[in-house]
Amino acid sequence: MSTGENRRVGQVKEITSLTNPIVKDIRALAMKKFRDQQNAFMAEGLKLVIDALDLGWTIRTLVFGKSQRGNQAVEKVAARAVAAGALVLEVSEKVLGAITRRDNPQMVLGVFEQRWTTLKQIRPADGDLWVALDRVRDPGNLGTILRTVDAVGAKGVILVGDTTDPFSVETVRATMGSVFAVPVAKAGVDAFLAWRKTTDARFIGTHLKGSVDYRTVDYARGAVVLVMGNEQQGLPDALADACDALIRIPQAGRADSLNLAVATGVALYEMRRHALPSVGREEQ
Amino acid sequence: MSTGENRRVGQVKEITSLTNPIVKDIRALAMKKFRDQQNAFMAEGLKLVIDALDLGWTIRTLVFGKSQRGNQAVEKVAARAVAAGALVLEVSEKVLGAITRRDNPQMVLGVFEQRWTTLKQIRPADGDLWVALDRVRDPGNLGTILRTVDAVGAKGVILVGDTTDPFSVETVRATMGSVFAVPVAKAGVDAFLAWRKTTDARFIGTHLKGSVDYRTVDYARGAVVLVMGNEQQGLPDALADACDALIRIPQAGRADSLNLAVATGVALYEMRRHALPSVGREEQ
Repeated sequence: MSTGENRRVGQVKEITSLTNPIVKDIRALAMKKFRDQQNAFMAEGLKLVIDALDLGWTIRTLVFGKSQRGNQAVEKVAARAVAAGALVLEVSEKVLGAITRRDNPQMVLGVFEQRWTTLKQIRPADGDLWVALDRVRDPGNLGTILRTVDAVGAKGVILVGDTTDPFSVETVRATMGSVFAVPVAKAGVDAFLAWRKTTDARFIGTHLKGSVDYRTVDYARGAVVLVMGNEQQGLPDALADACDALIRIPQAGRADSLNLAVATGVALYEMRRHALPSVGREEQ
Repeated sequence: MSTGENRRVGQVKEITSLTNPIVKDIRALAMKKFRDQQNAFMAEGLKLVIDALDLGWTIRTLVFGKSQRGNQAVEKVAARAVAAGALVLEVSEKVLGAITRRDNPQMVLGVFEQRWTTLKQIRPADGDLWVALDRVRDPGNLGTILRTVDAVGAKGVILVGDTTDPFSVETVRATMGSVFAVPVAKAGVDAFLAWRKTTDARFIGTHLKGSVDYRTVDYARGAVVLVMGNEQQGLPDALADACDALIRIPQAGRADSLNLAVATGVALYEMRRHALPSVGREEQ
């Protein structure tokens, strides 16, 4: 750490050793156990870090590669991180590769505090759409769903039961930054069903045995919670029974042949059909 | 290999060694180079192998774990494989784990001949829907798209330019078996544009700058080819210019925030809206 460094981007630590304890702590964030212990997670890429800061997330550590020294955008983010009380690390590419476990790592990454929404905070108003995911298992699916929820302007996601971690590296990557824009709550089945009684929202589940075509429901009235089963089993009875309607997305091929993130995307776009602005019409 | 084995399921070789040359050849199928050399690929799981046989794919080798000895369904498939001229291997779980590179491997897998459709064979008729994917990069996305194409009853996929391999282990897994049901062609951009002139199908691209709302197009008339850009860049000009219409899926969040497989799924379900059977209506 040189005085020259200090003057340029604030309080910067230079690290080249993989055995540095700060680096070890960041590397440990690859594991859920340590993410929970530290109540933190990692987001890769300058764009994501800027998004997170813009949206008011608390940054603990900013890490950037040596090659970025002098990059104005990076130095600006470093200054913001310092102002927010974060540690700023300038590291070798070897260290970046070790932290991200990638051959061609992003040159900037941030360690942020986790942020969870509680069920109590969720009070769906008319026109609001929430997504409840039952025991979603695949990190890529969860990340992709958070991204789609953001794109359609739905309000957030409730993770029900034992699910994959929204703050895993793989999920955060798949969200393309939407992890910072979409509120996420988690709840056991019982707490979720108890919460259901506190809201007027209609609970609409997708189900292979659903008797209602997903294209025939009026999603515009009131608030709606879309309830999706997981990759292996679809909705369990306890959740299916709690739904006001079970919809089905018709399939021409074999049964049950949609990926969870695709099925959620198709349902969400249908549910927001009335709300998404029209782009333009085809010239005839 | 015992005579008892022979009597039970036909011509069965027993293998317990990882250095067995047949096992080495199958393991090599994890790499595209060797898939191309052998013109073969691997599909895991009893269901997939049965699907493939039912759909007339050529099986070269059937591999099953020792623990499946006596499993009627497996022995039936083994008999079919032998009748089709395939080699049948009964292997230890260690060998299965090495072949599939998984801790909890599927107990049955098949090595099949690759099968490609050529552009010349593709003559879209009225009502047909094909999907052209420009340089798709992510194996999971390609597999998920093949699965969705199958689910909506579209006719097949044309891979344009340098793309990920539809016969990679990861893609085949993500298709959940649809790799056997959906014809796949590949072509360079020039060949694709030349083929375009041989068909009356309308080419409809999705584009962030598309001026046509994807919900306003009449997809029921004639044949349609949906043209999707890749994960990084969207459609290049050469392909966008060749499209009869550029549609856009509106997004409430930040720009360009849909995963490729989700965007393709949303577009496909809209394009097949008129064709997919109605399931039922909501009781009011």
